[in-house]
Order: sequence, then structure tokens, then C-alpha cells
Amino acid sequence: MANRVRVAAFGEVMMRLQVPGYELLSQADSLRYSFSGTGVNVGAALARFGHVGFLVTRLPDNPIGDAAAANLRKLGLSLNLAVRGGQYLGMYFLENGFGARPGRVTYSNRQESSFNTAPSDAYDYEAIAASCDLLHFCGITLAMNDAVRGHMLRLAKAMKARGGKIAFDCNYRPAHWGEGGYSKAKPHYEQMLELADIVMMNERDMIHILGMTTDKTDRLEQLTELMPAAASRYGISVIAGTHRTIHGDNKHSLHGFLYKDGIFSFAEPRTFAVYDRIGAGDAFASGIIHGELSDLEPERTVRFAVAAAVLAHTVSGDTPMSGEGEILRAMTDANGDVIR
Amino acid sequence: MANRVRVAAFGEVMMRLQVPGYELLSQADSLRYSFSGTGVNVGAALARFGHVGFLVTRLPDNPIGDAAAANLRKLGLSLNLAVRGGQYLGMYFLENGFGARPGRVTYSNRQESSFNTAPSDAYDYEAIAASCDLLHFCGITLAMNDAVRGHMLRLAKAMKARGGKIAFDCNYRPAHWGEGGYSKAKPHYEQMLELADIVMMNERDMIHILGMTTDKTDRLEQLTELMPAAASRYGISVIAGTHRTIHGDNKHSLHGFLYKDGIFSFAEPRTFAVYDRIGAGDAFASGIIHGELSDLEPERTVRFAVAAAVLAHTVSGDTPMSGEGEILRAMTDANGDVIR
Amino acid sequence: MANRVRVAAFGEVMMRLQVPGYELLSQADSLRYSFSGTGVNVGAALARFGHVGFLVTRLPDNPIGDAAAANLRKLGLSLNLAVRGGQYLGMYFLENGFGARPGRVTYSNRQESSFNTAPSDAYDYEAIAASCDLLHFCGITLAMNDAVRGHMLRLAKAMKARGGKIAFDCNYRPAHWGEGGYSKAKPHYEQMLELADIVMMNERDMIHILGMTTDKTDRLEQLTELMPAAASRYGISVIAGTHRTIHGDNKHSLHGFLYKDGIFSFAEPRTFAVYDRIGAGDAFASGIIHGELSDLEPERTVRFAVAAAVLAHTVSGDTPMSGEGEILRAMTDANGDVIR
Amino acid sequence: MANRVRVAAFGEVMMRLQVPGYELLSQADSLRYSFSGTGVNVGAALARFGHVGFLVTRLPDNPIGDAAAANLRKLGLSLNLAVRGGQYLGMYFLENGFGARPGRVTYSNRQESSFNTAPSDAYDYEAIAASCDLLHFCGITLAMNDAVRGHMLRLAKAMKARGGKIAFDCNYRPAHWGEGGYSKAKPHYEQMLELADIVMMNERDMIHILGMTTDKTDRLEQLTELMPAAASRYGISVIAGTHRTIHGDNKHSLHGFLYKDGIFSFAEPRTFAVYDRIGAGDAFASGIIHGELSDLEPERTVRFAVAAAVLAHTVSGDTPMSGEGEILRAMTDANGDVIR
Amino acid sequence: MANRVRVAAFGEVMMRLQVPGYELLSQADSLRYSFSGTGVNVGAALARFGHVGFLVTRLPDNPIGDAAAANLRKLGLSLNLAVRGGQYLGMYFLENGFGARPGRVTYSNRQESSFNTAPSDAYDYEAIAASCDLLHFCGITLAMNDAVRGHMLRLAKAMKARGGKIAFDCNYRPAHWGEGGYSKAKPHYEQMLELADIVMMNERDMIHILGMTTDKTDRLEQLTELMPAAASRYGISVIAGTHRTIHGDNKHSLHGFLYKDGIFSFAEPRTFAVYDRIGAGDAFASGIIHGELSDLEPERTVRFAVAAAVLAHTVSGDTPMSGEGEILRAMTDANGDVIR
Amino acid sequence: MANRVRVAAFGEVMMRLQVPGYELLSQADSLRYSFSGTGVNVGAALARFGHVGFLVTRLPDNPIGDAAAANLRKLGLSLNLAVRGGQYLGMYFLENGFGARPGRVTYSNRQESSFNTAPSDAYDYEAIAASCDLLHFCGITLAMNDAVRGHMLRLAKAMKARGGKIAFDCNYRPAHWGEGGYSKAKPHYEQMLELADIVMMNERDMIHILGMTTDKTDRLEQLTELMPAAASRYGISVIAGTHRTIHGDNKHSLHGFLYKDGIFSFAEPRTFAVYDRIGAGDAFASGIIHGELSDLEPERTVRFAVAAAVLAHTVSGDTPMSGEGEILRAMTDANGDVIR
Repeated sequence: MANRVRVAAFGEVMMRLQVPGYELLSQADSLRYSFSGTGVNVGAALARFGHVGFLVTRLPDNPIGDAAAANLRKLGLSLNLAVRGGQYLGMYFLENGFGARPGRVTYSNRQESSFNTAPSDAYDYEAIAASCDLLHFCGITLAMNDAVRGHMLRLAKAMKARGGKIAFDCNYRPAHWGEGGYSKAKPHYEQMLELADIVMMNERDMIHILGMTTDKTDRLEQLTELMPAAASRYGISVIAGTHRTIHGDNKHSLHGFLYKDGIFSFAEPRTFAVYDRIGAGDAFASGIIHGELSDLEPERTVRFAVAAAVLAHTVSGDTPMSGEGEILRAMTDANGDVIR
Repeated sequence: MANRVRVAAFGEVMMRLQVPGYELLSQADSLRYSFSGTGVNVGAALARFGHVGFLVTRLPDNPIGDAAAANLRKLGLSLNLAVRGGQYLGMYFLENGFGARPGRVTYSNRQESSFNTAPSDAYDYEAIAASCDLLHFCGITLAMNDAVRGHMLRLAKAMKARGGKIAFDCNYRPAHWGEGGYSKAKPHYEQMLELADIVMMNERDMIHILGMTTDKTDRLEQLTELMPAAASRYGISVIAGTHRTIHGDNKHSLHGFLYKDGIFSFAEPRTFAVYDRIGAGDAFASGIIHGELSDLEPERTVRFAVAAAVLAHTVSGDTPMSGEGEILRAMTDANGDVIR
Repeated sequence: MANRVRVAAFGEVMMRLQVPGYELLSQADSLRYSFSGTGVNVGAALARFGHVGFLVTRLPDNPIGDAAAANLRKLGLSLNLAVRGGQYLGMYFLENGFGARPGRVTYSNRQESSFNTAPSDAYDYEAIAASCDLLHFCGITLAMNDAVRGHMLRLAKAMKARGGKIAFDCNYRPAHWGEGGYSKAKPHYEQMLELADIVMMNERDMIHILGMTTDKTDRLEQLTELMPAAASRYGISVIAGTHRTIHGDNKHSLHGFLYKDGIFSFAEPRTFAVYDRIGAGDAFASGIIHGELSDLEPERTVRFAVAAAVLAHTVSGDTPMSGEGEILRAMTDANGDVIR
Repeated sequence: MANRVRVAAFGEVMMRLQVPGYELLSQADSLRYSFSGTGVNVGAALARFGHVGFLVTRLPDNPIGDAAAANLRKLGLSLNLAVRGGQYLGMYFLENGFGARPGRVTYSNRQESSFNTAPSDAYDYEAIAASCDLLHFCGITLAMNDAVRGHMLRLAKAMKARGGKIAFDCNYRPAHWGEGGYSKAKPHYEQMLELADIVMMNERDMIHILGMTTDKTDRLEQLTELMPAAASRYGISVIAGTHRTIHGDNKHSLHGFLYKDGIFSFAEPRTFAVYDRIGAGDAFASGIIHGELSDLEPERTVRFAVAAAVLAHTVSGDTPMSGEGEILRAMTDANGDVIR
Repeated sequence: MANRVRVAAFGEVMMRLQVPGYELLSQADSLRYSFSGTGVNVGAALARFGHVGFLVTRLPDNPIGDAAAANLRKLGLSLNLAVRGGQYLGMYFLENGFGARPGRVTYSNRQESSFNTAPSDAYDYEAIAASCDLLHFCGITLAMNDAVRGHMLRLAKAMKARGGKIAFDCNYRPAHWGEGGYSKAKPHYEQMLELADIVMMNERDMIHILGMTTDKTDRLEQLTELMPAAASRYGISVIAGTHRTIHGDNKHSLHGFLYKDGIFSFAEPRTFAVYDRIGAGDAFASGIIHGELSDLEPERTVRFAVAAAVLAHTVSGDTPMSGEGEILRAMTDANGDVIR
Repeated sequence: MANRVRVAAFGEVMMRLQVPGYELLSQADSLRYSFSGTGVNVGAALARFGHVGFLVTRLPDNPIGDAAAANLRKLGLSLNLAVRGGQYLGMYFLENGFGARPGRVTYSNRQESSFNTAPSDAYDYEAIAASCDLLHFCGITLAMNDAVRGHMLRLAKAMKARGGKIAFDCNYRPAHWGEGGYSKAKPHYEQMLELADIVMMNERDMIHILGMTTDKTDRLEQLTELMPAAASRYGISVIAGTHRTIHGDNKHSLHGFLYKDGIFSFAEPRTFAVYDRIGAGDAFASGIIHGELSDLEPERTVRFAVAAAVLAHTVSGDTPMSGEGEILRAMTDANGDVIR
């Protein structure tokens, strides 16, 4: 790997409580737990690619916070830029789906979490900005509350002021914004897009959140029409994303795209068996960021990012676990025998 | 849901002892246990649809009977019409199949179970009949012994005398009837069919058990020819059932049919991945009964019942776990993403 | 058992998430979950003794609420007086202690739970009062917030108006009341004590919460002096409680007392090995209530309650699981061989 | 070890289904299974001491019988003298006790097991007698039914006719003989005692089963008075047994005795922590047999047997797992540090 | 089954340490262990078919060796020809693959294992040869070191001298031979081929190891051209093997072939879902050997062997677990319903 | 905590493979794994006390090395001074003892591990010495081989040259040094003792390894006589250690001592229940080092170290998990109730 870069991700750490196998919460009596979040996933993936991955977050100072910290270090993240305080960690319960029965996520109360109640002086924006070369943010964080959005904005601005790079993943979640969510979200998204260099976004974000319009009905045609306009309107260097198709039998397809310097690059659509779908979008984002940080050709970057996402569907947990070598092999060799 | 109805199911409770994962009994050293049976499955499914689900059965008065009672309550069943006595619970061991290797069921001794040794005064037929609007019986119970058949018949007659409805699932199991089983079974089946309003049955039951004849060789043609004759001969209002096709890769197809008032209704065949096949027939039966109790259109009833059966294949354990809302969604949306 | 009585317990349901074995949250990766709470424990214990046990609570209408409801039914509770609504269930994480290392409980945010956010019209006090003969309340509930205290008070008054009985367990938890907690708590405790017939309390509650004074320094002497005064001041028929001593090696001792009609009864102190300490106080309370409902001699009641508490320390989970027969045997036979 | 001897044990194989940890059947949802029985335990222990251990039994020819056979081979038993046939294996469920809460065994139906329904020509007595030097029988088998008793007697006689040795463990279980059991049992016990060379028995067996009388009230005095009379009346070379005391905190004491050639030998009483109590009596019996087969001094034999029993209480499962070396070490070194 | 034959397999026993489910070693914290190896798998499969299966190997004399011995007996193997000595057992760690992510095997140090350090007098070649009718060897053993190769050769020669049969599975593993492996391996392979009667081999072995040449590019054409030459050059009676194709979604295809008496027999290609791929080649080999020992028609032998291999992919662990009856059914009935 | 100090520990990382519960390797089929070693344990404990804990070691560059690295980071260790290379990790299997049955450790081959085969240029001694304030070594490492001893010596000398401190734990393991071990070990121990500032050692080390003599027979008297001589002979500032007594019922006692500036300090003997004995000595050592680094009074240091050791016996795994606050509490409060 050519460049070892210092990357920091800003975001909430969630405790994932998963029913093992295919039982429901009302059938089982045990749960597997792990700690994740968009920032965790992107930071850990980039650390696995050889970069330094910081997490900027706030963890409670109790045994759950200790467990989170231990597991985040296990994933390869540095917590030197993280702080402790508050009382709670956000949690979600996951019941795995099977075939015709979709999986189900149930959230516990998030608004009182240590991250979402961080006081205004919780983070030292200047020190964080000085410690890294790229900062990653995500639309889920943007949906939380004004205090959190304030941290995001001030941190992003401190970073830009120092000449660092900003990556932003739109990640719009209707459930978090509630009714009339698109119009509530728009001004906040626009602030972030204006600061961002690399953005994960697709035509639906542009139409629904940003209010852009098109006569096209085909997703790909909409994309091709709207993307250059969005890049130009907000001054974004790189926009990337995927179209996902869900088949029966736990199979999905992904079609990846990347727009840079006026040129679209596509990765051929791949169809694959899915073991754990959550966090695959973060694997894609980390692949795009790694490609950009490593100065790969755009078409190679998007193919790398799709392969990273495909592998993330085959691994247990939210957080991508594949190294650069495994992803490079998966770009060419779809189905290998046991490696022994 | 329009009508909340009191439904009672008469049947044996079995302890299911399942080898976890895909090991054989001679490889593993642990078992998962649960409690099921046709009556359990149908009653619990109807309770989940919002009806009151009683189980009429007999459980031993020991720690195994206590465990059964606790787990049946957990499934939503009322045990107010169940009795305690005798010493044993029927058990079966299940080794899961995988692909080309079929699953395997091994029974322990059932004839000495509390249910199958219930004395003649074990149940208060009149009180049971007075407590519910519909009674469900099954051909597996019919195969047990004369004492059990006596309970079935007297209970069904008490119910008819009060004007209540009878549902009967033919559920012919060759292993239980032994050699020459069809002719042994015929008179008992005919007694039940004459009392029943809603019957789960297909053309094979009509040909083999009831001795009906046809020149047709195609299953669907046989069905279309024989069904009206059977309905008319025994005075049955509704006959429903499925044709199952087993593919490789743990995939099955189901084609559902319902005959009522001289008209056939069909649900389009569905192909789906199978996680736990046992009890899916009971999910279908409970869907048919729910449709009838809720005055659905016949075609909607059979589509609802097939969707209930499809979902039951995706859930761990014998007993259906899907609510009405999940089944309605599964009728239209075959493969959804994680619900979060 | 002579009298089958209808008992309702009012209280919050908590999800208990326990690290299996003796690992810490930062070592393990799985949790066992169950559903408990003082009301759950007392109601389930009384149902196991043959009474009808209702739980008056509010559960979220989501998969976690469904799981709670299924498991509460499994414990033998009736949910006919419970309501659904709100979004969250209170949770606590439990790390088991071993010898010199004490166990540790970490709470998630409880104030936003379905129970603690129940609107003013959530419960039908009159219908609840009409459905039961005795209502149980607990000091933990009293510590939650004004809305919950309002429900408690109005429900208790409706019950008294109908001539029903009230049991109240003081259960003072310093962590819930915070700094200056005793004086905050006093007026609320006094309101409940004036309505209560059976109270679980000891000399520390009288001194610290109620502000009673004594020159004695020995716990037993304090108790003997203060108890009659408290009973008289608040018009309480029965006061009962225990003194607990904690030895090394996971052994505890309990000394039980009961004051009624001016007379103290004591159960001889018992020393025993502890497997799961949580919920043992609720087992004691349910033993006292059962003794009173069954018109036992006071000394027999307190010995029964202590034996129930001793057995509750030997059972997994918060909720007592022993029947009347097992407790009667444990009153005489301290250490038996395997029963086979 | 001096002598490698061929030992066969005649007895039923049971499937033990144990709730893991300290949960009850109505709390848990999984079971650990293993295969045991007095014959299994004694034969396996002797195989572990270096002898050849045959099991003479009958196993069903189905997946449960296959699992039993595999696990019996794993324990070191030879099945060359065992037969296959019948349909069922006897089972028992075990809930572990803790401290004041005793463990609980619940049997499934045993009378229909393959062993207990073995037809009269199931075993080739002559071939079995020719294949071994010592045959072991047990009073539990004697309690089953006439057919099984017939097999026992004919096999024992064939063995005596060839000059082989017979060991018999009285093992009287009240629950198996039912009311009036002692007088039902007496003639059968007397037949076996007259054939036996080595007998496991204590003063209670002599008083209750054999109807011997004594004025003494102390157990040890009763033993000393009655033992010589019993040995003489039935012509028994060696009688051995233990007195067990059960303390709190899962601790037991064992006092071992052996009577041979008119001389009593005792092993000093030992007190020890108990992990799994079932099968410890079989470990003692196998120690006595091994001592006799190895021509140890009687006092060394009984000390070896007690140490074997003590270790058997510390091992998971019914079947003793300690080798001769471990037992010799446990005879002298009560509590060692980790061996590394 | 017509002929019960005594078969011995010579080879190393490995401890397989498998991460359960689909986690990686750096995610999980528990492992499932079992004991396998080519000789174990072939010997156990033949024992399951009704033959006597000896394993000729060397196990350490410590708790790991004891565990290995117990588990090998459980698989049905006789250890009468095995020896104990040395200190270590070879181990390998297995992380399961899923879909696009291949499984991964990591070996511990094998060269110091008890088997690979067996001294020159470890085995009694004459006694082994006298105890069995067929001896099985494998190319993995051949790759270990000179001492092991010496044992192989002397044992095979002792067997031939007595007129017994030799089976040899080429099983070339590039990782074991290292760089320039083919030429290192050639002389050793040629020695074994000259002694062997039944050989598992395909065209790649002939081209790469034996240096045979062909103008054909299609695998099947290469096979058809080279096989007769190899059989003739080394005097081999039967050569058999498979061509494997790996599809996505954990599906593989196998095409089986057998060459005997100048005639090729083929089994139709089969496509099937894969649960546990390791050891399937040994199931094929054992099917070929069983067919030969049972004098089946060659075409039936190869179809039996392929069905055995297909089933071995559906069973947990390295070692085939299917009996003759199950394989015969799988030859005709590809996908059955639960057997109950 | 006053001083945050940079501590590095030099030592091998072992994979601990533990049979869960109390089964033997020949009974169980699963293992729990973790990564430990004296250096791991001491470094992690010191990191938990707030210091920076580096591990100087060599890990294989394969999935097992990755898993080790992830878990070491999880424990709080920095791997910035660790290197990757070689192929294997040392392993040991642990079977837990119970009461009279001692636990058992079985090692896999350690001499070929990455650590024990580190080439002469594997570590940058100067850089390591420059990165930390105190270096920890252990007698187990000293027992490995000449190459490892060479690394130890050169690293310790580089540290002394820079004025850093050296801690050395004698930790003599007879099994590693083999026959005549004491005289083999003596020169190597003396080299380390001459470089060390803080030494963990007791009178047995002095007598057996160092050849010191005394007429006393009581351990404590021997200690008092020999310790000052040893401190003076090798120029050691602080010598500390414990005397351990093993009782039945998994209880141990520890008596701690510390010699500094000519003065002995003792911690009162403590008796406590033991859950996991391995690694407790490392907890003691880390307590001594922390006390010295924090300038505690010697008597407080040794009491802190004993309390740390006591708690380490109550925690799962080799590695101490208690923070400074928990240890301070355990110094005064022997047995607390659940903390909630």
C-alpha cells in the first residue's frame, strides 16, 4: 500500500444485540453483542487497509463503555480522540431474516446516549483536525439533534480550515427524520455537502432530499442526469454509490458507480449470497475513500469498493473485516475453494 | 381484525428434541427442546391472529409437564381446558437435513404418553364445547388408539350438538397406521369427515383413504374431479390443501387450493427457501380457519394461508410465529430488506 | 392450598441482560436475557403458589414488548390487566460476581420506558381494583417519577375504596432517589404506608426514610423498638422483613421477622450458598403475602417466607421458581440428595 | 497394572438429558445428552484401569441407538457382546440442584425400552460367559421385569458354571419396586446373592431387603454385626460399601468399608466438594472390583475405591473418567495446584 | 453387504479446531474440535459400511492423545494397530467461508507431531500386514518427511509380500511439497504407484507429478488419453477420481470416473449444496474401495462413490458419516422430505 | 493516579485453549480461546491502572497472529513495539480442576513458535529502550532457548544503559528446564538479577536456583534470613513475593511480602474462593510494579498487590481485569453485595 493516511470518523457507537441464528426475540433467550456504527465501520475498515483509524465519539464511563472501548480497540481503531462521559450507549436489537421473512431491527432509546448528549465543549475540534488527514461524517449522525449537528459542523469547518479532506455519506434514514423529514433534512445536508470532498449519494438523495428534478424514470438515467449537477452545485470532487437489488434466497446484487472530474465509472453488477447485510454500505464507502487516498484509477476504485461491499455481506457483524489482499482477490476470483 | 373467536384444538403435545445445526445425534452432545403438535401449532397461530386459542390436551404432572405448560403459555395458548395426569410426554428427536441429505425424525414411545392414556373421564366434553366456537382435530390424533379416538368423537359430537364448528386436518401418516393402514383408517376418517365443516385434504387422501376413483393421472385434474364429490358425500363446507414440490437447495414450492360452495380458488404457486419445514402444514390450516372465521373472500383466504405456510418455513420450531400483519405483507412483498 | 386469591402487582418490567458465567462485559460476547421486576417476581411467585397473578404494567408494542409478554406468560402471569404502548423497555446488564469480586448492575435509560412514560389515562383503575383481591406495590416504582407515583396512588386508593388489600415493599434504592433522597422519598412512602395492609420494611427504612429515632445500636433491638411504633403510626396490620449477612464464598445468612397484632415472630437464621441473589427479597415478600392469604400462623408464615427466599438464591434468574411443596420441604430438610 | 482381565457388565443403557447449569426444565431450552447406566459406568471405569470392558445390553437399531453405540465406544467399552433390536432407549432428565435446592431426576417410560423388552433369545449366555472373567450385575436391573430378571439369572448361572466370577451391586431403588417393594425384591436379591462373589451392600440392604435384625442403632455397629452373617448366609467372599453424609454447600462425606475373610477394612472418611453426584457409587464399585482383580490388600482396595468415588463426584457425567494414576495420586494428595 | 473385510489406513491424526458459524478467528472466542485425517476418514467410512476399520498411527500419550483416541473409537475405528508416544498432535484451524469469501485453513506445526517423529521401530509392519486385507495410504503422508515415507514403504512392501491389497490416494498438496515440489515428489509417488492396486488420481497428477504429456487441452480428453498409459506403466488395477467445479452460493459439481480392465466408467455429474467441504475426497475414495471390496459393477461403484462424496459435503466435520443405505438412497432420490 | 508511566513487557504470547466448565478434553467438543502470557498479563494490568503498556513480542503473520493482535489490543496493550514473523503461536490446553481433581495444562510445541524462533535482528533494542520507562522480564522466557535469552539480555542491557528500570519475575517452572534444571538455570538467572531493580522471588528460588543455604526450616524464617543476602548480593532494590496455601473446595490463601531498603513489609494472609488460578502471580507482580511506580508506602504496595492477586483469582482468563478502584475497594471490603 502506497500511502498510510490518518483518518478520523465522527459518529455514534451502537451496541448491537443480535439474536443468534434465525429465532425471534420472543423465541430465544440469548443475544450476541458487538459494537458498531457508521464511523466505527469506516474507521475500522480503513485501519485494516493500513491507515490509522481514529474514532471521534463519546462513550459512557461505565462497564458498557469499557466493553465498547475494548471491542473498538480490537477492531483496530484508535480511541485517542474519543472522550468518556454521559451514561448510556445507544442499542439496537437485530432479528435475522430468512428468505421470505425480512430481518428486523428494534432500537432502544438513542437520544439520551452519551454521544447524543455530548455537551458543547465535549470535543477539541482543533486538536482533532490537527491529528488527521481526512474526516468522515454520515447522514445518520445528522439526523440526531441540534447539539450533535453543531459538533459535526464545527468539526468539519475546523478541518476545512486546516486544508483537510471531508468524506460524507448521505445515508438518509426515513425513520430517524420522521414525518416531513426530507424538508427538515435539506438545509443540514446542504451544509455538509458544501464542505465535503467525497460524497456517498445516489439519485434518490438528490431528488428527495435536495429537491432536484428529472423527467427520467429509469434509475440509471436519473443518476446520469443529476449527478453532474449535484457535484457542480455543491463543489464535490467525488460522488459514489450503489444500486442494490434484492432477490429471493438471501441473494442481492450491487451495481456501483463513481463520478469524478466529469466522468462516470461503473463496476459491473455482482450478484452474491448474503450472510449479514448490515454495514455493507460502510464497506463500500471505505473502499471509495481508500481508492481516493491511494490514487487508484476511478474505475479500479469503484470495483474495489464493490468487492469490499460484497465481502462485507459474507462476514458476521456490522464491521468490515477484509484486508486489501482479500478484496483484490475477490475482484477477480468470484468463488474459491478452501484456502489450505 | 374483525372477529375475535374462541378456538380450541384437541391434540397431543410432543416434546421436540432437535440437534442444533447440521450435526447428527451420533456427532452432537446437546439438543434444543420445544413443545409442539398439530393442536399446539394451530391454536397458537390463531391466538397470534387475535383469537382466543385453547388447547385441549393432557400433560403429565411432573417437571416435564410443567415445562410444557410454561412453553405453551409462552406461545399464547390458554390451558384452561387442559388437564394434568399420567406420567409421560411423547417425544421426538429431529436431525436437520441439508441439501441432498434429508432430515430425520426418531420417535420415542408415544402410546404410554399422558395424552394417549387419558382415562375415559379425563375431559369434560360439554364444558369444552361450551367454551369455544370452533374445535380443531387432526388425523395424527386419529391414528393413536381407540381411547383417543373415543375422546375425539365424543368431543366433536358434543360440539356439533351445540352448533359449534369443526375443523379437521386429514394429515395421514403412513408410519402411524402401519401395514394395511388405509383400510384401518377409513371408517375413522369417515366419522370425522361427516362431523367436519372445514377440512384440510387433497386428492391422495380421497383416493387412498376414502377409496374414491378417477381416470385422471395429473394431480390437479384428480383434485378438480374428486373434491366436489367428497364435499358432497360428507357434507363438508370448505375443503383446502396444498401441493408441495421439493427442489434441491432447501427450496420448496407450494400450490394452494380451496373448494367452497362449488367453486375452486387457487393461490399462485410460490417457491421459497426452507429453514424449518415441520409445522408448515399447520400454518396453512390456521390460515384457512382464520380466513373462514374472518369472512375473507375464498381466494384471499387461500393466498393468506399459503403466505402463512411460506413464512412458517422460515421460522425456527414447529409452531408458526407470524402475525396477521407480517403475513399480509408477505402476500405482496416477496423479499424485503432489513426492517429498521 | 386453601384459598385461591386474585393478586395483582403493579410495576415495571425490566429486561435483564446477563453475562453468562463469570466473565465481564468487556470479556464476553453473549448475553442471556429474561424479563423481571418486583411486580413480575411477586406476581409469578404467587401464581406458582396457586393464586391468580395479574401484572399491571405497560409494555412497548414492538418485538421486545412481544418477547416480554411471551416470557411473562411463561412465568404464569396473566396480562389481562396490562396495556401496550410507548417505545422502550427498561434494561439492566448484570455481571456476576465471584467470591471477593462483587456482581455489577448497569442500567440503561429507564425514564423513557413504556412504563415510566405511561399517560394519565393508561390504566383503568376501577377495572383493575374490581379484578383482584390484593394489590402489590414497591418502593422502586415509587422512585421513578411523578406520573408513575400518581398511577400508584390512584390505583391504591381505588383498591382501598373497594375494600381490597394493599401490600407494599419499601425497597429503598439510594441510587434511584439520588442525593438527599431520604427526605425526597419520605412523603411518598408515607402516603403508601397509610394505604398499606402488609408492608415489607426494616429498622433502616424507619430510621432513614421515616425519620424515626432510637438509642439502640443493635439492629435487632432497633427493630423491636421501632416496629410497633411504625405499625401504629401508619395503621399497618403486618410488617415483615429480613436481616441479611454476607459471608465470603458466596454464602449469605437471612434472619426473618414478622410483626402482627403486637407480636413478633422470627424464623431461625439460615446460612446458605448463593447462586443468583437478585429477586430473593421478592420471594420473601411473596411468601409473607401467601402466608397471610392462607391464614397461616405468623411464625409459620415467616419461616415459609425465609425458605422461599433461600430457594430463590439457588435458582437462575430474578423470578422465584419454587412451588409450595418445594418450599415446605426446604423448611425442614436443609440438604437433600438428588430426587430420583 | 498387574492383571488385564476381561470384565462384562450386564445392564440397561440410559440416555441422560441434562439441563446445563442450574436452570430448571421450565426455564431452559437446551439439554446436554450422554449415555450411561450402572453397567456402562462400571465397565468403562474398568476399561480405563486397563481391563477389557464389555457391555452386555440391547440397543435400538435407529439413530438414537447409533448415538448410544458411538458414545459407549468413546468411553472405551467394547460392544462385541451387545445386541441391537427393539425401538426405544430409556431416558432420564436431570435438573442440577444447588445448595439447599436438591437436583431432580424425571424418567421417561423405561418398560418399553429395547433392553427391557429383549426377547428370551436375545443374548447368547454361553458365548458371553466364555468371553469374560468377571460379570457385573446390579439391583436396578433386577427391579425391571421378569424377562430381564430371567436374563440376569440365566447369564449368571452360565458364568458360574464356567467358573467365572460374579459381582453384584444391591443398589436398591425404592421408586422402582413400588409399594411393598422390599418383600417383592427379597427372593430376587437372594438368588443373586447366592451366585455372587463380590457384593456392594450395606446394613440397610440387610435389614430392609434381607430381613436381618439387630438391636444396634448406630449404623456402623449394625454393619459390624450383620455383615459377617450375610457373608456367611449367602457365601459371599467380599462385601463392600459406603456410608454417605450430605452437608450443605454441595459437600458430601464418604466412609468406605470392605469385609473379606472375616476381616473389616475401612477407609478414613473423606469430605469433598461435589460437582456431579450421579454415578459415584459405580466408581466405588469399580474400584473394589479392580482392587480384587489386582490382588490389592483389602485396606488399599477400599481406599482406592473411595478415592475413585471422590474423583467421580468432581467429573461431569455419570461415568467415572479417572485413570489408575489419578486415583492413586488422589489417595494421598487431597488438593493439588494446576498440573502444568 | 456381502463381504466384511479388514481394512487398515496408515496416516496422521489431526486435531481440527473450527470457528463455529461464519466468524473469523479474530472475531470469535470459541472453537469446536474434532479429530480427522485421510486415514481416519477412509477407515471410519469403511467401518460404517460394515468392514473392520483399523487406523495405523501414533498418538501422544497425554490428554490430547486420550481425547483423540476416544473420538476415533467413537467414529468406529479400531486402535488395536495404533501406538502411543511422542508429545504433540498436528492441528489445523478452520474458518468457514461463505459465498464469495473462501474458507481458510491455518496449520500449526506438524513436523514435530507424534506421527511425524515416530522412531524407526514404532510400528510392527508384519503384525499390521497380517491383521488386514487392504491397506490405505495417501499422498499427504508421503509429503511429510523421510522417516514417515520409510514407514509407508516398508509397510506397503510387507503387505504386498503377504498378498494383501494396497489403495493409494495421490492427494497432492502443493503447500506441503514447497517449491519445485513436483520433481521432489515424483520418485516417492512412483514407488507407491508401483505397489498400489487401487489408485485415486486424475490427469493433473499424471501431467504434473508423473510428467506424462498430452496434446489435449480438455480435462476429460486428457484423462481418457493418459489414464490407460498410467495404469499400464505402474501396473494399477483400478484408477478413479473426480472433476470438481465450484459454483457461487456454496454449490459444487462432481463428475466421477473409474478406469478398470481397460474400460472407463462415469457417474453422471451432480450439482449440490455444500455444508462442509473437507473430507469429501476421502468419502469418494472409501466408496471406490467399498465397491471394489464388494465386487460391484464398476459403473455402480463410481456412482456409489460420488453419492458418498455428495453426502459427505452435507455433513459436519471431515469424516463421512453416511451408511450404505443412505448412500444407496442418495444415488436415486436427490432431494427428499423429512423422514418421519 | 499520580504517575502515568510507559511500561514494556518482553515475553511470548500463548493461545490458551480452555475446555469450558468442568469437562475433560476427552468429553467435550468445544474450547474457549484467549491470548495470554506473563508479559501480556503484566502489561495489560498496568495499562488498566492507567500506564501505557507495550508488549515486546513476535507474532505470526497469519490469521492466528491477527486474532492474537486483535485480542491483545482489546486488553489495552499497545503493539507498536511488537513485530510479525514466523509461523506459529505457542498454545496450551487447559482442563479446569474441581475440588479434589486438579486442573491440567497440556502444551503444544512451543520451541517452533514465532517468539522462540525470532532471528537475531528481530527487535530494535535501542528503540524499545527509548520508548519506555520500565521493562518487565520473566523466568519462563529465560527457560526457552539461547536465542531468546540473548534477546532478553541485550534488551535489558540497552535499557540499563539508558537508565531505565528492570523488573524481573523469577517464575521458575521445573518442566521447562528439565532434569538438572536448577544448575542450568543459575547463570541465566544471575545475569538477570544483576540487571534487575524489582524482583519477584521467594526463599525457594534463593535456595534451589541461587544455591543459598539456611538452617531454618520454616518458610517465613528462611525468607527473612535469605532475602537481605540476595538483595545485597545482586544489588536489587525491591524483592517481593507470596506464599500460597491450597485448601480444599477451591479455596487458596496468599501471604504477601516485600523487602525494600532493608525493611520487610507484609500483607495479612487472605483466604478466598478461586475461579481461575492462572495468571494470579502476574497480577501480584503488576501490583508491586504499580505501587513502586506510584511511590506508595511499601506496606500499602504489598497489600495492593495481594488484593490484585485475590481479584485475579475471581476473573475468567489469565489476564487481570481489575482497575485500581476495584482493587482499592477489595483491600478493605472483603465481600460485597451486588453493586446496583
